[in-house]
Amino acid sequence: MSTVQYSIAELAKRFALEFQGDGDRIIDGVGTLSGAGPSQLSFLANSKYAAQLSATRAGVVVLGKDALPNCPTSALIARDPYVAYAQIAALFERLPAAAPGVHPSAVIAAGARVSATASIGPCCVVEDGAVIEDGAVLGPHCIIGPECTVGAQSRLVARVTLVTRVTLGKRVLAHPGAVIGSDGFGLAFDRDHWVKLPQLGGVRIGDDCEIGANTTIDRGALDDTVLEEDVRLDNQIQIAHNVHVGAHTAMAGCAAVAGSAKIGRYCMIGGNAGVLGHLEVADRVTITAKSLVTHSIREAGEYSSGVPLQENRQWRRNAARFKHLDEYARRLSALEKDKNDD
Amino acid sequence: MSTVQYSIAELAKRFALEFQGDGDRIIDGVGTLSGAGPSQLSFLANSKYAAQLSATRAGVVVLGKDALPNCPTSALIARDPYVAYAQIAALFERLPAAAPGVHPSAVIAAGARVSATASIGPCCVVEDGAVIEDGAVLGPHCIIGPECTVGAQSRLVARVTLVTRVTLGKRVLAHPGAVIGSDGFGLAFDRDHWVKLPQLGGVRIGDDCEIGANTTIDRGALDDTVLEEDVRLDNQIQIAHNVHVGAHTAMAGCAAVAGSAKIGRYCMIGGNAGVLGHLEVADRVTITAKSLVTHSIREAGEYSSGVPLQENRQWRRNAARFKHLDEYARRLSALEKDKNDD
Amino acid sequence: MSTVQYSIAELAKRFALEFQGDGDRIIDGVGTLSGAGPSQLSFLANSKYAAQLSATRAGVVVLGKDALPNCPTSALIARDPYVAYAQIAALFERLPAAAPGVHPSAVIAAGARVSATASIGPCCVVEDGAVIEDGAVLGPHCIIGPECTVGAQSRLVARVTLVTRVTLGKRVLAHPGAVIGSDGFGLAFDRDHWVKLPQLGGVRIGDDCEIGANTTIDRGALDDTVLEEDVRLDNQIQIAHNVHVGAHTAMAGCAAVAGSAKIGRYCMIGGNAGVLGHLEVADRVTITAKSLVTHSIREAGEYSSGVPLQENRQWRRNAARFKHLDEYARRLSALEKDKNDD
Repeated sequence: MSTVQYSIAELAKRFALEFQGDGDRIIDGVGTLSGAGPSQLSFLANSKYAAQLSATRAGVVVLGKDALPNCPTSALIARDPYVAYAQIAALFERLPAAAPGVHPSAVIAAGARVSATASIGPCCVVEDGAVIEDGAVLGPHCIIGPECTVGAQSRLVARVTLVTRVTLGKRVLAHPGAVIGSDGFGLAFDRDHWVKLPQLGGVRIGDDCEIGANTTIDRGALDDTVLEEDVRLDNQIQIAHNVHVGAHTAMAGCAAVAGSAKIGRYCMIGGNAGVLGHLEVADRVTITAKSLVTHSIREAGEYSSGVPLQENRQWRRNAARFKHLDEYARRLSALEKDKNDD
Repeated sequence: MSTVQYSIAELAKRFALEFQGDGDRIIDGVGTLSGAGPSQLSFLANSKYAAQLSATRAGVVVLGKDALPNCPTSALIARDPYVAYAQIAALFERLPAAAPGVHPSAVIAAGARVSATASIGPCCVVEDGAVIEDGAVLGPHCIIGPECTVGAQSRLVARVTLVTRVTLGKRVLAHPGAVIGSDGFGLAFDRDHWVKLPQLGGVRIGDDCEIGANTTIDRGALDDTVLEEDVRLDNQIQIAHNVHVGAHTAMAGCAAVAGSAKIGRYCMIGGNAGVLGHLEVADRVTITAKSLVTHSIREAGEYSSGVPLQENRQWRRNAARFKHLDEYARRLSALEKDKNDD
Repeated sequence: MSTVQYSIAELAKRFALEFQGDGDRIIDGVGTLSGAGPSQLSFLANSKYAAQLSATRAGVVVLGKDALPNCPTSALIARDPYVAYAQIAALFERLPAAAPGVHPSAVIAAGARVSATASIGPCCVVEDGAVIEDGAVLGPHCIIGPECTVGAQSRLVARVTLVTRVTLGKRVLAHPGAVIGSDGFGLAFDRDHWVKLPQLGGVRIGDDCEIGANTTIDRGALDDTVLEEDVRLDNQIQIAHNVHVGAHTAMAGCAAVAGSAKIGRYCMIGGNAGVLGHLEVADRVTITAKSLVTHSIREAGEYSSGVPLQENRQWRRNAARFKHLDEYARRLSALEKDKNDD
């Protein structure tokens, strides 16, 4: 289907890689080591898949120097084969066409500013005071609320909602169902009922961030909620009001960060992990999946909570004992004391 | 409100059930044992509710043979009363009308193929290369991206998004806010920033699957993400790229499966449970709520992780001890050794 | 940007607060203690921020009597400064204009009833049998299904879906992506496949409730799912079918309640906490973040589960020991027995 074609020599030149084998071979797509055919490129980045290399039918494989002796076909040699593969594979991605202009079914307020090079898809709504910069692409059903800006070359795939006072930097990629700039969850308890705190801040998203499907990012109560540049959020992540996420931090699906927490740069937050409100997490911290961060973390490193999975009956016996752990520790100390008193 | 009516004898015949009592009584709806009136059908499938049977005012009760002596009204006798009730109750469901044809506010690309018997609701967007098969129903605000297929008799309730390269089988039911075919979360770290891996695969959903509200299913990086037939996903579930879910597996709300995991057939994944990436889970495995699967599971059975809920002060004391569990185990062994050395 | 202005004396009078300082000073906005300028109001409600009071440049600070001596500027004195601040700040909130009437792009069924004072935004779909009461505001892309009612003065910010048989009370606030009235997850297993239970109930939401972004609330199987008045739900919460939530209960982001559970009044459910199905939780119960409620709770109080976060290598050692906790407890008892037998 794709008509994109490159010779192996062209790819080597474009990405400054050495190659070995047939430089004239034409590559028109990518595939896994086990699935790629003679006109496709594959890669070996994880030694777990090394066994598949010798049997591959791929036309060329991106790999590290070490793997070269076992490669039965042409090779592109990369310092980091995964990064090199990512860059090459992008050539073969077929993105939906997005011609500049506004679809007739879109509703653009008189007070909105839409660049002539932007593309606004079917049923989009762009409200007063919104700005859509050059080359930005809004897929179908996006809603851009008042005082929101979509930065140049950003792409909102479909059905993304920016509620109010949201600024996206350049080249931001947001996936369907994402909601950015919704009310923070601020409540004051007045004797017998809740009083809502108005959420008067906004959201600032840096250049090159990615926001996953159905992820929610609340706007700040007074100051802004902030994602610095190159923050990568997977699907169904919840970022509460006034959270600050440092540059290059990545979070896996279903992670959640409570209000006013400050996450450092180059952190990795695992799937369904959580960070409680008002905490600080240092740079280069990794939190493993489903862990809950209950205190600030001052040092880089990997942190975890939780207990291991077991067959249910075994687990029940152990879990029941957890309820008495403090008692056991005391009884253990008592035994030790007795022994020492002997 | 409903005008659907059946006599008890008609219901017995239609579903091949024995009945006892007044076969001519007209039934026009269903209700709980405590709430149903004389023209309504109820059911007893869980012995927990047996006490409610003797006082029911229902016109007829679907039940097992054992419960018959305590039934004060007519009865339909079923091997599995819950299944029989499910089948009968479907007769009384009032689904919104969905006349064939395309709503004038829908936006259908010239290169899309929409069956004349399909129903396309208000503000739907169907893009080039999409196929909508016979009898499929798209409620309002659905988006069907390029190279997507909605199988015959499938129903997208409202606001469902198929992003790209998504194939739904026949009779698939998808609920509002579901996003299928969004980008998998693939990133390569290049010295000081992230490089995105293009997500070139698709999603294949088998016949009779159900996809809950605001559930997200990412498309594969190279190969497809796959749900075999009759997979049932509740709300807010996250299925990452290249996951494979076996037929007849059911997952409760907020469960999440990380990239390339392979879940077997007839599994039950509890609410907010998680499965880490690249793992394999055998057929007929049950994972209890909020458990995290951290290693492959080779045998059918029930598996769990987590610790029990306690009053907060007690819990704090026990939880604090968890941080020293390894030390306690060593001290315990030391005491035993001392004793044996005596 | 805001043109709303009040003198300090006017604010004091309006909210029945004492003031100290310059009553004629004009206030045109709010800010944090560290960020507010001379024409802005700030507040001190948390002693953690007390150190910022003496350096504030705010025109006036809402505070408790105790903090008055350290206040370098005018003050509004409140019994509960957080509540007073919430009420005052609402004056300075700039909500998007919502003129009564129906946007031309909206699709209103002939059998829907829309109040002349309601505001229906772009691309909304209001189906047959739906009712939109006086002063209700539907932002862009809302879908109101059959037999749904949006109560007076309620506000659906944008892209909210009411599926079927959903009744919202007065002044309900729902955020983008919320889905209310989707199918409950009801399945009966028939030998080798699933049979779906039709979901014939509805959802009733009381006055003054708030429903967060991408939150899902399923309709009941037979009876209704119910939220009593003033229930506050944050983002990405999952409420299953036939759940009943008592008045004034608040739930933080990503919490989930399984089918038929009954939560009391004035409860606080922490972020990503879960409640299993069919349980009952008493009034005034607090569940801490990420805890799982596995049994009914009969008494008010705070409850928790989980284990503390640790550096990963330490955690691994302790977590591995958890799998043998039952054995350790037995060995401990054996040692004690031996000692007593000595």
